[in-house]
Amino acid sequence: MQIIDIRQSIYDNNDREAALLREQLRRQKTFLLNLMASPGAGKTTTLRSVLPLLKDEFKIGVLQADIDSDVDARAMAEAGFDAVQLHTGGMCHLDAGMTRQGLEAIGSERYDLIVLENVGNLVCPAEFDTGAVKNAAILSVPEGDDKPLKYPLMFQVANLLVINKTDTLGVFDFDVDKACTRARRRNPEIEILCISAKTGEGVDRLADWLRREIRCWIGG
Amino acid sequence: MQIIDIRQSIYDNNDREAALLREQLRRQKTFLLNLMASPGAGKTTTLRSVLPLLKDEFKIGVLQADIDSDVDARAMAEAGFDAVQLHTGGMCHLDAGMTRQGLEAIGSERYDLIVLENVGNLVCPAEFDTGAVKNAAILSVPEGDDKPLKYPLMFQVANLLVINKTDTLGVFDFDVDKACTRARRRNPEIEILCISAKTGEGVDRLADWLRREIRCWIGG
Repeated sequence: MQIIDIRQSIYDNNDREAALLREQLRRQKTFLLNLMASPGAGKTTTLRSVLPLLKDEFKIGVLQADIDSDVDARAMAEAGFDAVQLHTGGMCHLDAGMTRQGLEAIGSERYDLIVLENVGNLVCPAEFDTGAVKNAAILSVPEGDDKPLKYPLMFQVANLLVINKTDTLGVFDFDVDKACTRARRRNPEIEILCISAKTGEGVDRLADWLRREIRCWIGG
Repeated sequence: MQIIDIRQSIYDNNDREAALLREQLRRQKTFLLNLMASPGAGKTTTLRSVLPLLKDEFKIGVLQADIDSDVDARAMAEAGFDAVQLHTGGMCHLDAGMTRQGLEAIGSERYDLIVLENVGNLVCPAEFDTGAVKNAAILSVPEGDDKPLKYPLMFQVANLLVINKTDTLGVFDFDVDKACTRARRRNPEIEILCISAKTGEGVDRLADWLRREIRCWIGG
């Protein structure tokens, strides 16, 4: 498991840099998923739960951004996945230039699927196109069903919303229908899946979503 | 209940502006608490749970920052507290100049205690001195005990760490001792309280902490 310190990007135009990165990913047939969520919503646990269902079909790598620590990449490496920990040096998000540094560190051309686990934050990561093919956001049940009201951009830029920790629906006052309605008000196109990364409930549908998107991107 | 749109600050030197604001708060005998946490950690629920224990002793006002929505200030107003919703227009934190706008909107000189509920985010708010007398951070049990490893600055700048949602300790894999040790490694001076804002467990100790700090600041 490798740790790299991400440097501040030198590009003025992040959207242009992101588009170039996506073109490169298309050419090399690598699907890049940008996974965003609050701290502790279960990004790493979700990956540890869904990626084993895909590992016989696809070559998979994981980039995990954090302000500090190597907790996440270590967890992924222990689960048998190639993982690189990206230290942002205090920065609250990743942009396309920073994502490119991670892709170079892991050697992205060797993979069919790379998941970029963004910094745990519902605000800043939503503002920057990383160059990913699709954006997924995780909202966990303990956070509450009002989050799409408070952090609109995150739900607007997400192609997929994963509602996680559904095994705790009995413990928290979380209305799945309300959460879905509020998310769709921000983004009528958003796809929504309910899972419990801990118990495995619904994780097969997340694997199906990824399988479909990867095949659609890499062809075949 | 009032909603105001916060303008970007015009001050080059936030630390100087924060020091000036604190001097003003000292003169007018207002204790300002900066409350920070991840989205959904329970900032508003904690306030709704602890502030009623203090409302006969102190004049209390609440400033609640969010990217969008008026959910939080509405909840506080329904609980009978003076509350102003601050819309940050996408900004991920508050600085001293933005805090000053909120204090002017609520008329801070009329209050003994003002709580500033910062934007739900463990990264950016930790980087800016708001001018508050003390910083408190909430970490909720569902987020996991590894957060001090991943978001070091938040635990470094917090005078008080509130571990919330302790009623769910049986549901999640959260080790209170580990969380405390990790937080103290970042900040040996940090005070730590465990509460459940939902059941009320431990909330009296949080009220005691606030009472002590307010009295110490306003004298008497």
